[in-house]
Amino acid sequence: MISNNPVSVSIVGASGYGGGELVRLLLDHPNVRIHQITSERFAGKQVSKVHPNLRKFTSIKFCAIAELTACDLLFLCLPHGHAMNNIEHYRALAPKIIDLSGDFRLDNVASFERFYKQPHACPDYLEQFVYGIPEINRDQIRSASLVTGAGCNATATILALRPLFKRGLAQQAVIEVKAGSSQGGNSASDASHHPERSGAVRSYKPTGHRHVAEMMQELGDRFNTTPQISFSATSIEMVRGILATCHVFLNEPLTDKDIWKIYREDYGNERFVRIVKERTGIYRYPEPKLLSGTNYCDIGFEIDPDSNRLVVMSAIDNLVKGAAGQAVQAFNLMYGFEEDTALGFAGLHPI
Amino acid sequence: MISNNPVSVSIVGASGYGGGELVRLLLDHPNVRIHQITSERFAGKQVSKVHPNLRKFTSIKFCAIAELTACDLLFLCLPHGHAMNNIEHYRALAPKIIDLSGDFRLDNVASFERFYKQPHACPDYLEQFVYGIPEINRDQIRSASLVTGAGCNATATILALRPLFKRGLAQQAVIEVKAGSSQGGNSASDASHHPERSGAVRSYKPTGHRHVAEMMQELGDRFNTTPQISFSATSIEMVRGILATCHVFLNEPLTDKDIWKIYREDYGNERFVRIVKERTGIYRYPEPKLLSGTNYCDIGFEIDPDSNRLVVMSAIDNLVKGAAGQAVQAFNLMYGFEEDTALGFAGLHPI
Amino acid sequence: MISNNPVSVSIVGASGYGGGELVRLLLDHPNVRIHQITSERFAGKQVSKVHPNLRKFTSIKFCAIAELTACDLLFLCLPHGHAMNNIEHYRALAPKIIDLSGDFRLDNVASFERFYKQPHACPDYLEQFVYGIPEINRDQIRSASLVTGAGCNATATILALRPLFKRGLAQQAVIEVKAGSSQGGNSASDASHHPERSGAVRSYKPTGHRHVAEMMQELGDRFNTTPQISFSATSIEMVRGILATCHVFLNEPLTDKDIWKIYREDYGNERFVRIVKERTGIYRYPEPKLLSGTNYCDIGFEIDPDSNRLVVMSAIDNLVKGAAGQAVQAFNLMYGFEEDTALGFAGLHPI
Amino acid sequence: MISNNPVSVSIVGASGYGGGELVRLLLDHPNVRIHQITSERFAGKQVSKVHPNLRKFTSIKFCAIAELTACDLLFLCLPHGHAMNNIEHYRALAPKIIDLSGDFRLDNVASFERFYKQPHACPDYLEQFVYGIPEINRDQIRSASLVTGAGCNATATILALRPLFKRGLAQQAVIEVKAGSSQGGNSASDASHHPERSGAVRSYKPTGHRHVAEMMQELGDRFNTTPQISFSATSIEMVRGILATCHVFLNEPLTDKDIWKIYREDYGNERFVRIVKERTGIYRYPEPKLLSGTNYCDIGFEIDPDSNRLVVMSAIDNLVKGAAGQAVQAFNLMYGFEEDTALGFAGLHPI
Repeated sequence: MISNNPVSVSIVGASGYGGGELVRLLLDHPNVRIHQITSERFAGKQVSKVHPNLRKFTSIKFCAIAELTACDLLFLCLPHGHAMNNIEHYRALAPKIIDLSGDFRLDNVASFERFYKQPHACPDYLEQFVYGIPEINRDQIRSASLVTGAGCNATATILALRPLFKRGLAQQAVIEVKAGSSQGGNSASDASHHPERSGAVRSYKPTGHRHVAEMMQELGDRFNTTPQISFSATSIEMVRGILATCHVFLNEPLTDKDIWKIYREDYGNERFVRIVKERTGIYRYPEPKLLSGTNYCDIGFEIDPDSNRLVVMSAIDNLVKGAAGQAVQAFNLMYGFEEDTALGFAGLHPI
Repeated sequence: MISNNPVSVSIVGASGYGGGELVRLLLDHPNVRIHQITSERFAGKQVSKVHPNLRKFTSIKFCAIAELTACDLLFLCLPHGHAMNNIEHYRALAPKIIDLSGDFRLDNVASFERFYKQPHACPDYLEQFVYGIPEINRDQIRSASLVTGAGCNATATILALRPLFKRGLAQQAVIEVKAGSSQGGNSASDASHHPERSGAVRSYKPTGHRHVAEMMQELGDRFNTTPQISFSATSIEMVRGILATCHVFLNEPLTDKDIWKIYREDYGNERFVRIVKERTGIYRYPEPKLLSGTNYCDIGFEIDPDSNRLVVMSAIDNLVKGAAGQAVQAFNLMYGFEEDTALGFAGLHPI
Repeated sequence: MISNNPVSVSIVGASGYGGGELVRLLLDHPNVRIHQITSERFAGKQVSKVHPNLRKFTSIKFCAIAELTACDLLFLCLPHGHAMNNIEHYRALAPKIIDLSGDFRLDNVASFERFYKQPHACPDYLEQFVYGIPEINRDQIRSASLVTGAGCNATATILALRPLFKRGLAQQAVIEVKAGSSQGGNSASDASHHPERSGAVRSYKPTGHRHVAEMMQELGDRFNTTPQISFSATSIEMVRGILATCHVFLNEPLTDKDIWKIYREDYGNERFVRIVKERTGIYRYPEPKLLSGTNYCDIGFEIDPDSNRLVVMSAIDNLVKGAAGQAVQAFNLMYGFEEDTALGFAGLHPI
Repeated sequence: MISNNPVSVSIVGASGYGGGELVRLLLDHPNVRIHQITSERFAGKQVSKVHPNLRKFTSIKFCAIAELTACDLLFLCLPHGHAMNNIEHYRALAPKIIDLSGDFRLDNVASFERFYKQPHACPDYLEQFVYGIPEINRDQIRSASLVTGAGCNATATILALRPLFKRGLAQQAVIEVKAGSSQGGNSASDASHHPERSGAVRSYKPTGHRHVAEMMQELGDRFNTTPQISFSATSIEMVRGILATCHVFLNEPLTDKDIWKIYREDYGNERFVRIVKERTGIYRYPEPKLLSGTNYCDIGFEIDPDSNRLVVMSAIDNLVKGAAGQAVQAFNLMYGFEEDTALGFAGLHPI
């Protein structure tokens, strides 16, 4: 059912993978009218030229950023750096903005400059943007005009670890993310050339990953602690998906039952978080391939009986819960729609 | 929106891949209530134990076939041979049946016995079942009580070639299907063991494939001709999906424009058939991976300027348009629902 | 054992995939000394920078073409067009040349111009180059100074069909090649970007493939016939490897025994051709993944009992038997070495 | 060159993946004559029926264990538990044994019983078997009659970490192994069924992996320390290969130069260990796909400038350096052959 006064939204940078997913999801949203979508490279071309899954779903064409006109809400899906350098321009076009880049995720300018290795163009905005993980900041998002998406690896890791860190049960974790090739974006390079990338198990960022800044903020700053977060990402044979395997060193012994209780307390009523931990069967722990196209974050865990280590696994689709889907989830909150509107896809099995 | 009097359906053999997709699609159907689902092996277990994508979507459990009670319509998703041996039993349970096996696809008992190498248990039923490709038999399906699904390779091939064969423009074709591993069903074997099956390019049925019987029926018998259909299937590294590359030898010269006209005439108004043929870009021809989870059949073509050969390519998801999705499409016709109800998923890019 | 007077060879264009395989094979050749290897883009860099499998195997560096000095034999692995435009230059550097490009594969200049859509720069050379499939032209290669490699798809197809065509048993075939991504070379593009290319089943050349010219020459011209060759290539999820599925329409009925006899007659003593046709087991027909890194061409077949169709399947590694390996095989013949010197790798299972 | 008196070896359990690789490698060994190979399931069948890469390489057939006769050396490639229960039988057949199972890897019976959850059948043998990683125990292997292979994950991890642990530079590490499907052996199961296993990122052993016992022994017991080893394995889309990402917490600050020096000291002269750490290019760190079929262990590292963490990555082919290849390397030492005899394969690029 289409509402009488749909929200008019534009998507800036819609030829990228995150932007394409936004178009797909919003085309199916009963309360949204897509006003404009931009791509400098493909301006004038059909969106389905770039995102061929949308053939017959829409006849909308890309325009250039310079052609943007006013709308209710702008989704910004541009490379890091663009949004902060043009924020006033976009603010003049729309009263509400959801930015998917890294520009406004950190509220601490020093942390931004350390991890992004550049000065911030508009540091005053940092505090105005709400960090857009609904499971953490639901109420602030509801009333926000400016929302920033979260990093995909950060989303998976923060959702996995926050129940423990906020309770002071842990302050140290080693996180190993297995990542797909879509995380690198849609620009071809020698490294993404199929014969080279296919079957690769490539140490992408053994140290120094930018998303660590978000983890430190949401797992530490928020609770006035300075946790020890060791993060590595490895690119594997996969297009979509993240599995974060988090080795947490607990401050005190916890049983399976304790952990279940903690995660149920935090996520039992969450529409898009599932605790996945089964004793038998093939899919005993979170499996990213099952989440392709969905907005779920699946979380599982296993206690090491021989030490104070707890292994928490967390899986998402980096382009949905890690980008476009979470942005739509935040959008739904901002407008009072059902939180799962346009996010009902169950995922496929087998796949 | 849920209707007041939803259709009550049961799915027999729902632990298989086709049955699992039916459950997924029907859970999202506003006019359907799933009454029972059966699995002999998993009776008593949650459906999400076998189809983990459905976690949190349903708490329904498998029952045994012996526990089935009356409902409005039965989807039969059992191995070949079961339905024809038990058809009276199922008829007593429901006034309408959609059978996804090969038992009732052929209306000629001799053809059945030749291709299936066994006598038919209830040949009188063969003429009562309507062959369930809506693009071909829409009106008959609307008024049918008994509908049979079509073979997945047959669906892709028949939709690709029928516009030419029905017009008498061709009578000979060589069809090469590239098939995914889900086409072999959900039973593990030495041949499906990952280290052996991974990366394979395995000549599966170079000759003698059962689906040829359906192609002969729909491309020949229906038009009182006996075409020469040469069919091979090769299993490749893929889980879902079919690409049928059809080399058609034309009886008369045709131009690009002619072919466009013919296919537009037949499929221009079809919700689930798209003609895909572009001069530039990456996705110039049908690509099965874009169709994962969707009910589309994408069809493209290229004329060989040096001979009377026309190459027609056709792609589907074997579990959706080739099985569960097409069954739901037929179901919608049988009950007068919008033909695409519960079939609106656009597919993913990238994937 | 290293011979006292090894053959001094240089490889021109060694940063490509075919050139890289040549370096790998020749480093292991007891009678060869690699003199120089060239790459314009990587001149001055270690070969292992581009071909990391060769780390610790050689410390040789790329030089530019302009730096080449005289040697015994030149392997030319350059893009089509380069060799014919510079042939005199290379002739002055070495008394013997093996060219892996398409420039000298055809002995008919009209055919070259039709398929390559450009005039030939030195048509007089066309007859001087020997077509380098040893199983066909062993004796000519032995005494040749100029040898041209064969196209990878052409090699697979010609070896599959020649026994039938040379005996006049068939004149028509539809060939469907399943191809890996390395066939497209080592240049990154939007089409080879991993998220787009991964899992693709992409109709690459439904008609008009250049390798058809070689097939027409070796299956037709050689026997003074004009066969009807219909060829399509489809790119699948695979890096190396070709499976050619050839639908042959026989002029007369043949039994399994007949076909076995014909292929054994032609290939029974061939070191690098195996007839693969088993009644049971997983690998009943040729499987390209088993051939990765090897110089084998595996050939199998199945008769269609319902028509005059014979399906012949043929598998090779496109970079070895379809390029570098076949070139080394020819090289061995030219110098009187054992034909399988440096070509003894058995391939891996599982893989 | 074939020696006059080759070593006569038999391979027990040669239908498995490790055994198959042993046959492949030993067929190419100039100083070896394969005496017998066993498989209970395939007794009487050609080895190439199970390992089709060996077609035309050998006509040897499997026999049953009961048919074994005396030989110089036995390779035992049987499931865990078999060797220790039949060790006297095998001792009577051959003066030398290399066992690839887990039965004799630990010299501490308590550790065996804790990790393998069963009593040891012949604990007196535990001290007699030499742990077969040549880079660690070269001299002992040279003079040994009984050698045990090392676990594949243990091999990768121990070679990565030993230089640091033996120097007392670290005592804590979190190791994340990315593993291929061949590590699970050749038995088909629901979990290895291609549609389920394909594309999986499956937490296989988040805690409690048996190979940890070997790591504790070689990284701790040997140096009279009790390190804290946290190990997890995740199965990914890959058939062969291991990447171990080891997060090491250093006891004292070390520079890049320090680490280079340490690893060069230990491995600079090793034939099968390469330090892989480049500033540019695609393959800057160890990449398992490049090692398919080779006996290399590639090791790289990156220092976390923000903490005391050092990330060490280590890649091997689990079936070669992690099983058959390392066994042949040990065999070569036991007989005084060149350590790399039959192990010269460079690996493929691209792959």
